[in-house]
Amino acid sequence: MERILSFVESNKDRYLSELKDFLAIPSVSSQSEHNKDTRACAEWVASQMRTIGMNNVQIFETPGHPIVYCDWLAAAGKPTVLFYGHYDVQPVDPVNLWTSPPFEAAIRGENLYARGSADDKGQVYIHLKAIESYMKNSGNLPVNIKMIIEGEEEVGSANLDNFVKGKKDLLKADLVLISDSAMFARGVPSVCYGLRGLAYMEVEVTGSKSDLHSGSFGGSVHNPIQALSETISMLHDKNGRIAIKGFYNDVRPLSKAERTAYKKLPWNDKKYAKDLGAKQLYGEKGYTTLERLWARPTLECNGIWGGYTGEGAKTVLPAKAFAKISMRLVPDQSSDRAAKLFERQIKRIAPKTVDVKVRALHGGEPAITPIDSPGVQAAVAALEKGFGKKPLYQREGGSIPIVVQFKRILGLDTVLLGFGLPDENAHAPDEHINLDNFFGGIRTSIHFYNELPNYWKNGKKK
Amino acid sequence: MERILSFVESNKDRYLSELKDFLAIPSVSSQSEHNKDTRACAEWVASQMRTIGMNNVQIFETPGHPIVYCDWLAAAGKPTVLFYGHYDVQPVDPVNLWTSPPFEAAIRGENLYARGSADDKGQVYIHLKAIESYMKNSGNLPVNIKMIIEGEEEVGSANLDNFVKGKKDLLKADLVLISDSAMFARGVPSVCYGLRGLAYMEVEVTGSKSDLHSGSFGGSVHNPIQALSETISMLHDKNGRIAIKGFYNDVRPLSKAERTAYKKLPWNDKKYAKDLGAKQLYGEKGYTTLERLWARPTLECNGIWGGYTGEGAKTVLPAKAFAKISMRLVPDQSSDRAAKLFERQIKRIAPKTVDVKVRALHGGEPAITPIDSPGVQAAVAALEKGFGKKPLYQREGGSIPIVVQFKRILGLDTVLLGFGLPDENAHAPDEHINLDNFFGGIRTSIHFYNELPNYWKNGKKK
Repeated sequence: MERILSFVESNKDRYLSELKDFLAIPSVSSQSEHNKDTRACAEWVASQMRTIGMNNVQIFETPGHPIVYCDWLAAAGKPTVLFYGHYDVQPVDPVNLWTSPPFEAAIRGENLYARGSADDKGQVYIHLKAIESYMKNSGNLPVNIKMIIEGEEEVGSANLDNFVKGKKDLLKADLVLISDSAMFARGVPSVCYGLRGLAYMEVEVTGSKSDLHSGSFGGSVHNPIQALSETISMLHDKNGRIAIKGFYNDVRPLSKAERTAYKKLPWNDKKYAKDLGAKQLYGEKGYTTLERLWARPTLECNGIWGGYTGEGAKTVLPAKAFAKISMRLVPDQSSDRAAKLFERQIKRIAPKTVDVKVRALHGGEPAITPIDSPGVQAAVAALEKGFGKKPLYQREGGSIPIVVQFKRILGLDTVLLGFGLPDENAHAPDEHINLDNFFGGIRTSIHFYNELPNYWKNGKKK
Repeated sequence: MERILSFVESNKDRYLSELKDFLAIPSVSSQSEHNKDTRACAEWVASQMRTIGMNNVQIFETPGHPIVYCDWLAAAGKPTVLFYGHYDVQPVDPVNLWTSPPFEAAIRGENLYARGSADDKGQVYIHLKAIESYMKNSGNLPVNIKMIIEGEEEVGSANLDNFVKGKKDLLKADLVLISDSAMFARGVPSVCYGLRGLAYMEVEVTGSKSDLHSGSFGGSVHNPIQALSETISMLHDKNGRIAIKGFYNDVRPLSKAERTAYKKLPWNDKKYAKDLGAKQLYGEKGYTTLERLWARPTLECNGIWGGYTGEGAKTVLPAKAFAKISMRLVPDQSSDRAAKLFERQIKRIAPKTVDVKVRALHGGEPAITPIDSPGVQAAVAALEKGFGKKPLYQREGGSIPIVVQFKRILGLDTVLLGFGLPDENAHAPDEHINLDNFFGGIRTSIHFYNELPNYWKNGKKK
């Protein structure tokens, strides 16, 4: 182990420079003008897998972006880890708010800045380098590893489901390992045991068949921006609760133990608000911030547009207004059901003076992983060795829908080993990853693979 | 007169083809990338003025877009008309909703389609051709004419005020003539005696210092799109009245005579709603549609934007959301006061969890012109001859702020001789002008110039 870890130490510069190459590829999966880049990124990942000594490297085509697979299966009698990650990234706009170009990774202070640095290229890369370091110094790996790195996570993983269903034998494993989340805080390593689900909707409001002159027609028809605003304003009640009929029916209440555990975590509302630059916090009454973030459903407007949004003034009464609105879900809510309740509520409350269309764009289910599962326990041991500190248990407000799919299709529990930090601007300008966490992540991953067999015996849980 | 009118008849094709050249210049005053085009358009207008026989053609520079001037002052003892128009146009987006390219004028059915065809290039051009027809066939004009055609009407005529103030002698006249409005309806010629004013505002709501991941942060801060929607939803009460404290204090009530007159106009709410493609009409309770459009103030959202508005889904909790909101004002409201009341109200009602900034982008005052003034009476006579039908009196929902400035600075009343139609999509995709109105407009303008001296004697009102 010592040789492996000192190999990491002496290869830091090379690892960073290779990571920069990975981050330079603008693999924005939601924007078709980047299809070529996204493909190039898949090929870059495949070539990395070959370089570090993985076998059976394949690029599987899908109706969308390809999935990259590889494995190393020579650890007879040892457990098999199915590692999942994604090489696609979020769009970069508003691009003018980035301090340095989003696809030219730059180190400032303790961080490396680039789109995908935290979500999820940087974290995928941690595992590639952990495997390389192990392989180069022992000639083998302590466990069997299968990897699938997909290119559609940021657009709802539409084709992963069918891929996993069709490749059940190829993907047979003992547990799933994902690094696509954040630690609780800087210097507070943690294992994540719960994720929120998602139902992502689009609302289209039409007031008239074409744009109108706001002087000649203003005052006679319902402005669709106004109608949409009125509708959105009715989606929360005065206590910050989501005002959708039946929405809370399936929400599993927080247990007393969880509420007590969260209260023990280092947390300061004032500091949190200050760090975000928020005047005051806002959320569901009767819950702490951590409870709101991890264990309560939320409804957020992700985008709104309509009418003239350019420079200067245009006196238009627009024909249409749009909003993208998503709900974060907690156990035991279902994405489909939330989408249906949302649509029903919008139809119920939208002014009768306008036409309203509701579309479900994508969804994912919430999940909770047992904290006494062997994978989670191996992760706890690895984090303690990698960061020199006992990790805490936490949930995560984001969604990794595939966690639910892996359980449903392959029957596997997922270990969530997150090396990001909550303030690293995933999905926003100036996304970055902390360099200590990046290298701590490589060390932890090496320990995880090394520790895991201790929790299994002959392919069975100990 | 007969020779002049038959000259118009035999030059129809040439007039249309020249108009198409005028409309081909993308003189979008609000977009700086079009500055060169806007300048080229001013030069095109100047060259037209020279061609039709006007004297003293000059392009006056301003800090913004130039103002084109010309005159013809050889009608000794006759009144002097100051004609005002604008050669700049509104932006064309959403450009994909145009049936034919906005700067390639196309005739379909009875209409000519292009940006600026109705507002205001087409109507400016009507007068240029009326003058040409008169001049070519009598060698002179029946009145003195001064023309100023500006390039910043669509962005609030910021530099016209100073220009008029500085050129009081040059612009000395007996009345102002403007063709920048619409007739009441197809086949219903009308004289407009009132205009609404405008206060155009922008609101910026900030929730956090940067965009956040809606999963990791959703539920802890007030979403700025939600906060903006909540604010907008409070700007109208349940009776469709504007919910701004003090807003109606200066609104001059409709006279009984006006309300009776409007009720005599041909109008059908159902047909109006159907033509616009609106499910139901919406407006201030207690007023008819015409009253709402002409004599009551309104508040419209002209644009809204924030967060992700592109293809697909992005799970962002945006830092900011923006809206452009304008108020149409009626006598005796003032633009500055409305802007102040608006800002005060926004600050009062916006959630305390977010930062709110309010900016006034531009404004103009409402106006009413006496219907017994000689210019208006000459217009009535001319319309009857030009269209073969007695015109009606109407107001107009739009704003021509310069009408107020001409009164204030030069002491002149304005005659509003509109040849547009209310459904010609000024400011929207597929803007067009009706060809019968275009040529009827040329005939009416010829008659107007010819009739005017009958209402004056030795430069004084009869």
